Amino acid sequence: MIAQKYQKMLSGKSAIRELAEFAAKRGEEIGYENVFDYSLGNPSVPVPAEFTQVMIDLLKNEKPAKLHGYSPSLGITSVREKIAQSLNHRFEMNYTKEHIFMTSGAAGALAHALRCVTEPEDEVLTFAPFFPEYHPYVDLTGAELKVVPPSKSDFQINFALFEEMLNEKVAAILINSPNNPSGIVYSTATVKHLADILRQKEKEYGHEIFIISDEPYREILFGGTDAPYISKFYANTLSCYSYSKSLSLPGERIGYVAANPACKDADEIVSICGQISRGIGHNCPPSLIQLAVAEVVDLTCDMSVYERNMKLIYNKLMELGFTCVKPGGTFYIFPKALEEDAKVFCKKALKYDLILVPGDSFGCPGYFRMAYCIETEKVERSLAALEKFVQGEY
Amino acid sequence: MIAQKYQKMLSGKSAIRELAEFAAKRGEEIGYENVFDYSLGNPSVPVPAEFTQVMIDLLKNEKPAKLHGYSPSLGITSVREKIAQSLNHRFEMNYTKEHIFMTSGAAGALAHALRCVTEPEDEVLTFAPFFPEYHPYVDLTGAELKVVPPSKSDFQINFALFEEMLNEKVAAILINSPNNPSGIVYSTATVKHLADILRQKEKEYGHEIFIISDEPYREILFGGTDAPYISKFYANTLSCYSYSKSLSLPGERIGYVAANPACKDADEIVSICGQISRGIGHNCPPSLIQLAVAEVVDLTCDMSVYERNMKLIYNKLMELGFTCVKPGGTFYIFPKALEEDAKVFCKKALKYDLILVPGDSFGCPGYFRMAYCIETEKVERSLAALEKFVQGEY
Repeated sequence: MIAQKYQKMLSGKSAIRELAEFAAKRGEEIGYENVFDYSLGNPSVPVPAEFTQVMIDLLKNEKPAKLHGYSPSLGITSVREKIAQSLNHRFEMNYTKEHIFMTSGAAGALAHALRCVTEPEDEVLTFAPFFPEYHPYVDLTGAELKVVPPSKSDFQINFALFEEMLNEKVAAILINSPNNPSGIVYSTATVKHLADILRQKEKEYGHEIFIISDEPYREILFGGTDAPYISKFYANTLSCYSYSKSLSLPGERIGYVAANPACKDADEIVSICGQISRGIGHNCPPSLIQLAVAEVVDLTCDMSVYERNMKLIYNKLMELGFTCVKPGGTFYIFPKALEEDAKVFCKKALKYDLILVPGDSFGCPGYFRMAYCIETEKVERSLAALEKFVQGEY
Repeated sequence: MIAQKYQKMLSGKSAIRELAEFAAKRGEEIGYENVFDYSLGNPSVPVPAEFTQVMIDLLKNEKPAKLHGYSPSLGITSVREKIAQSLNHRFEMNYTKEHIFMTSGAAGALAHALRCVTEPEDEVLTFAPFFPEYHPYVDLTGAELKVVPPSKSDFQINFALFEEMLNEKVAAILINSPNNPSGIVYSTATVKHLADILRQKEKEYGHEIFIISDEPYREILFGGTDAPYISKFYANTLSCYSYSKSLSLPGERIGYVAANPACKDADEIVSICGQISRGIGHNCPPSLIQLAVAEVVDLTCDMSVYERNMKLIYNKLMELGFTCVKPGGTFYIFPKALEEDAKVFCKKALKYDLILVPGDSFGCPGYFRMAYCIETEKVERSLAALEKFVQGEY
């Protein structure tokens, strides 16, 4: 028989995906260049040319049977070493290769990290607004995701509600800073306060509470943003990274888990990830991509377009009277809708070919997300449409 | 806390991996060319040059943001179409792209197929000798793997014992033909008989029993072997494929699930695989590798070395008085050891720098596996060592 659990999931369609499909269809009618599609977080800038060159060199010069051979189950040793060194250099950490587990992007990293530190029936807390895929990521491990309501004034952490929700069953806190969908970055004060509370609760409950830090947007930061490296502030941290955004390689599925060297069982965690792999059919990201990424480990693509777009959009939103927390990074912005039901608001926007995503599925009704990883020229044209929309309807 | 289930697995070291590590270490002492390492099934021949050229062309000519962008969650549409057409052409099937789900190799394919058609507490039956990783693959889904003892005279299916073990809890049969470790291929008669029994039991139990057919060695066949395409004989079949062996790309993690178009819920199975992905962090094999493999979908590398090696080894084994079923494909052979305990036998062989893997972990004590995906010149030298070993010790 077909497994019921997954069959049931089929009925629940993703709001983001439905909007992206609408945008594609509308594009066929009026030309996609005229659809102001803010639905998907697909990077719009190219990978650094150095990456492409490294790939071509490897393909031309390396022996195929070696190049395409099995990766060791924890990742290619030299790659893990380079990543550890890069993190140490950038964030003053002391990782060794033993703390780095190579994964198929952040989704793979989270799948391992979650299984590593939770048992079925445990609770995992996250903070709204949050990436909707956290639900299947967590719920299908057997643990339960619980969502702390947002702090709407700044999208930092609502600590009062967080402390109310903490209890002995909480095994992990899943955070995402810089944040999808709000674009905000947790401040040093926020991270310190979070760490203090968790250390106290660990003592009280007599067991570890891990931070699982989902960091695919770590490299997309706007000028002047206070952006602490989470793991520096809390030993029991598993950092989950992906090169999807920083190198514009989302389709190549490459990332890692970095276990803080001071965390509980630090020397075993990566090996445990290797065991988890056997159960979920993961077996390493592609060898070739591992080798190539390691050669450009300290590079990012030119991501200046994201900050340029953010400023244009933010300024126009302010001018039009929106309430909005200014993003510190990512390529998302999360303003308050101009009426209570953001789904109605976003539906009205479709008439102006503006594809906005209601905040409901991010755990924050009444708000909407714009993913501005698109060309600046299109952003500029979209803002005229936004102005027309707001003035026509409100 | 660190999850106990996976922590316990750490203590159980793989016999194959231990032997491979021993071989590498011994290689440092006497030169790896003098270690007759038959431990690992890592393809020794290069990927077709066409693949490398396609990769370089894509990297040089395709827009990076498009080339490396997210793959749709079920796989790239054009790639799924090409694979369906190739299977239809080769095996007279009628797949469409809707029946093909792209995965990270056979491990990824099995992870999805198993979750698709089993619920926790269900039983999955497999036939000894079998690939030891089937245990974590199945057991960590919540279902239970049960092993039907081998038919030692031919390593086809022991139907008497199989029928004894069938019961209402059996949701799937996991088969692997051509087989690791025996190298044998299920005959048309075997597959037909298996299908007949399953159809009858489906009626009796009132639920489907799926065949999950693990086929990474499908393209490595030796002259004259009867090698039926399993899915032709049984509608409720999910074929799990990997290009690891046929294109010598094990490190690039590329394969698929092909659901028989006549199977139960055929139109939903691939979408269900997409839902399963969300829970296990899979999210597609790499875009670039998908695109490149689709361009060489009907090619294989030159695998003639495997048959050449098999014949040399098989003939020598016969000459030395071993009992052995002649392989019909793969790059494995699975002779009977010359004493009851194959672990003792394989340990003695180490003195002659022969790295043989005892059959115990394959569910078939008293036998041993040789993975002859190595150079023929080395095979020839190894046979002198084998002769010396046998004549010296037995």
